Amino acid sequence: MAVYTDITEGALRGFLEAYDIGRLTAYKGIAEGVENSNFLLHTTEGPFILTLYEKRVNPDDLPFFLGLMEHLAARGISCPLPLTRRDGTLLGELAGRPAAIITFLEGIWLRQPEAPHCAALGRALAGLHRAGEGFALKRANALSVEGWRPLWEKARERADEIAEGLRAGIDAELAFLERSWPKGLPSGVIHADLFPDNVFFIGDALTGIIDFYFACNDTLAYDVATCLNAWCFDDKSGVYDAAKGQAFLAAYQAERPLTPDEVAALPLLARGSALRFFLTRAYDWLSMPPGALVVKKDPLEYWRKLRFHQTIETAEGYGLTG
Amino acid sequence: MAVYTDITEGALRGFLEAYDIGRLTAYKGIAEGVENSNFLLHTTEGPFILTLYEKRVNPDDLPFFLGLMEHLAARGISCPLPLTRRDGTLLGELAGRPAAIITFLEGIWLRQPEAPHCAALGRALAGLHRAGEGFALKRANALSVEGWRPLWEKARERADEIAEGLRAGIDAELAFLERSWPKGLPSGVIHADLFPDNVFFIGDALTGIIDFYFACNDTLAYDVATCLNAWCFDDKSGVYDAAKGQAFLAAYQAERPLTPDEVAALPLLARGSALRFFLTRAYDWLSMPPGALVVKKDPLEYWRKLRFHQTIETAEGYGLTG
Repeated sequence: MAVYTDITEGALRGFLEAYDIGRLTAYKGIAEGVENSNFLLHTTEGPFILTLYEKRVNPDDLPFFLGLMEHLAARGISCPLPLTRRDGTLLGELAGRPAAIITFLEGIWLRQPEAPHCAALGRALAGLHRAGEGFALKRANALSVEGWRPLWEKARERADEIAEGLRAGIDAELAFLERSWPKGLPSGVIHADLFPDNVFFIGDALTGIIDFYFACNDTLAYDVATCLNAWCFDDKSGVYDAAKGQAFLAAYQAERPLTPDEVAALPLLARGSALRFFLTRAYDWLSMPPGALVVKKDPLEYWRKLRFHQTIETAEGYGLTG
Repeated sequence: MAVYTDITEGALRGFLEAYDIGRLTAYKGIAEGVENSNFLLHTTEGPFILTLYEKRVNPDDLPFFLGLMEHLAARGISCPLPLTRRDGTLLGELAGRPAAIITFLEGIWLRQPEAPHCAALGRALAGLHRAGEGFALKRANALSVEGWRPLWEKARERADEIAEGLRAGIDAELAFLERSWPKGLPSGVIHADLFPDNVFFIGDALTGIIDFYFACNDTLAYDVATCLNAWCFDDKSGVYDAAKGQAFLAAYQAERPLTPDEVAALPLLARGSALRFFLTRAYDWLSMPPGALVVKKDPLEYWRKLRFHQTIETAEGYGLTG
C-alpha cells in the first residue's frame, strides 16, 4: 500500500503539458505497489496510471523498466505501455521525483487464485519469457544469490526476535545455496516479482501483467520457482497445492518446455526464491517502526515454504509430469 | 489518507450482485477520506465509488448521510448519488462493515484555491443550504459547542506538549464561547466539513461536492464560517486573504443573503469553527502512535486562525461589504 508523495493539481497540470493525453478530469492516489507512489488519472482520453518513482527505485534502472514494457507491449504482451512525451522521452519529473505515465489495464488481481488461474499464469509467463528475447538493455538481479548475504547481515542479529532458531536455520540454508546455486541455465528477462497482485484477470481470463520494477536478466526458471511460491500454496493452511503447481507447470511447458537441467534445478531455485522473499520481508519486519500503519508481510510464511522445498528432491514433487 | 480494510474480489463480486451496475473490470483502493475505506470501481457501466464505513462513523447516522445525498442530488446539487440496491435499500455489508456504492464525480480538488474558486464555493454553499430545505431526517451536530468540552478534556492535560500556553489559551476561549455562542440563527442542513478536498473543480468550474459524513442540522452561517477558515487563509503565510473572503461572501450572499444577526455573529462563529478543528486535530495529534505513517494535520494552524478571529470585531473584517 503506497502513496508516499502527494502532488498538487497545479504541478500535475504542468507535468501533463508534456503529454498528448487530453484534458485532466480527475486523479486519485491509489493504494497499490509498495515501492512507488501511484495515481489513477482520468482524462478526456480515458484512464491512465501516473507513477512517481520513490527512493527504493534506482533512477538508473528506469530506462530498463520502461523500455522493457515498450518492448513487451510491442510483442503482444498485455502490460502497461509507457506514454511517449512530446519530446520523445518516456520519463519526466514531478514533485522532485522521476515520473512516468503508463496505460491503465482493466482487470482485477485475485486474492485466492485457483488452478485454472495458475494455468493462465503459466502460459503468460512462458509468453513473457519468449517476448523478452532481443531486448537490448541489461539489468543484473540485485536480489539473486550474491545479494542475499548482505541483506541477511542486516537482519541476522535480530532474526531470533521473529522466531527462535531462525538465525541458525537461515545461516545453514544460505551457506548451502551459495555452494550449490545452479549456473548456466537458460537466462533472459525475468519479471522477478510475479505475485498475484501483479497479474490481472477478468473472470478466468488473464488480462494483464504489471509492475516490472524488479525485472532483470536472470535464470528464466527462477521466475517459474517464484510463481510456485507465490501462487501454488494454500493461503490458509500454508500447504503446497499440487493441483495448482501441476496446472501452472504444464501450461508453462506447453509454451516453453523446460530443459532437463532446469527441471532438475527447480527445487533448488524454489529454495532460493523463498529465501529471497524471506530476507526482504524479515528486513522490512525488523526495520518497521512500531505502530506504523502498514501491513507487515509475514517473513515466516517464506521460512515455512523454504522448509517445504527442502523436502522436495525432484520437480515431480511439484506436480511436474511428462 | 485511508483504505483501512482490504476486500477480496470474491466478496466484492458477491456484494455487487445486489446492484445492477454491469460487470466489474477493475477496483483500486484510493487514498481519500480519513474516516472510511474507499475504492474506485470500474464496471462496464463506468466508474463508481465504493465506501466501507469504518468505526468512526455511527451506523445509525448512515440513513441521514445517504438520504441527504439523494435529496440534494434530486434538487440539482452535483454530489454523489447512492445507488439503490435490487432490494430498494441504499446500504449493504461488505467485509463486516456497512457499505454503499455512490456515483463517481469527475473533478479535482484544488490544493491552492484562488479567489474565483472561493466565489464558486460561495455560490455552491448557498445552493446547498437552500437545497437542504425540506429534508426530513435530522442529525444533531456532535461537534458543535456542547461537544467541545468533552473533546478538550481528552487533550487538555497534554496540550502544552503541542505548544506552551495552549492549555490556558483554549481554557479561556472555550469558556468564552460557551457563554456567548449565538442562538436562534437561521438553521438547516450544513455540510460541516467543506474543506478544499471535498470540492471538485474542472478548470475554474466547480463540478461537485463530496463527503457528507459530518453533515448535520445546525446554524447555516456556521458552514460559512468554516469555509472562511478552510479556504480564505494563505496556506504558506497563514495570513487571512481578504480578497478570497470577499469573493466567497459576496457570492454566497448573492444566492442567500445573510441576515443582520448572521452577519453580526460571523466573527464568533469563525472562532467556534476554528476551535472545533483545533480540538479534533489536537486530539488526533496526541493520540497518534509515534512513527505512524499518517500525515498529522497541525492543530496549531487552527490555533493561529482562532487568534486572528479574536481580533475581528465585525464581518467587515472578513471583506463582507454592502
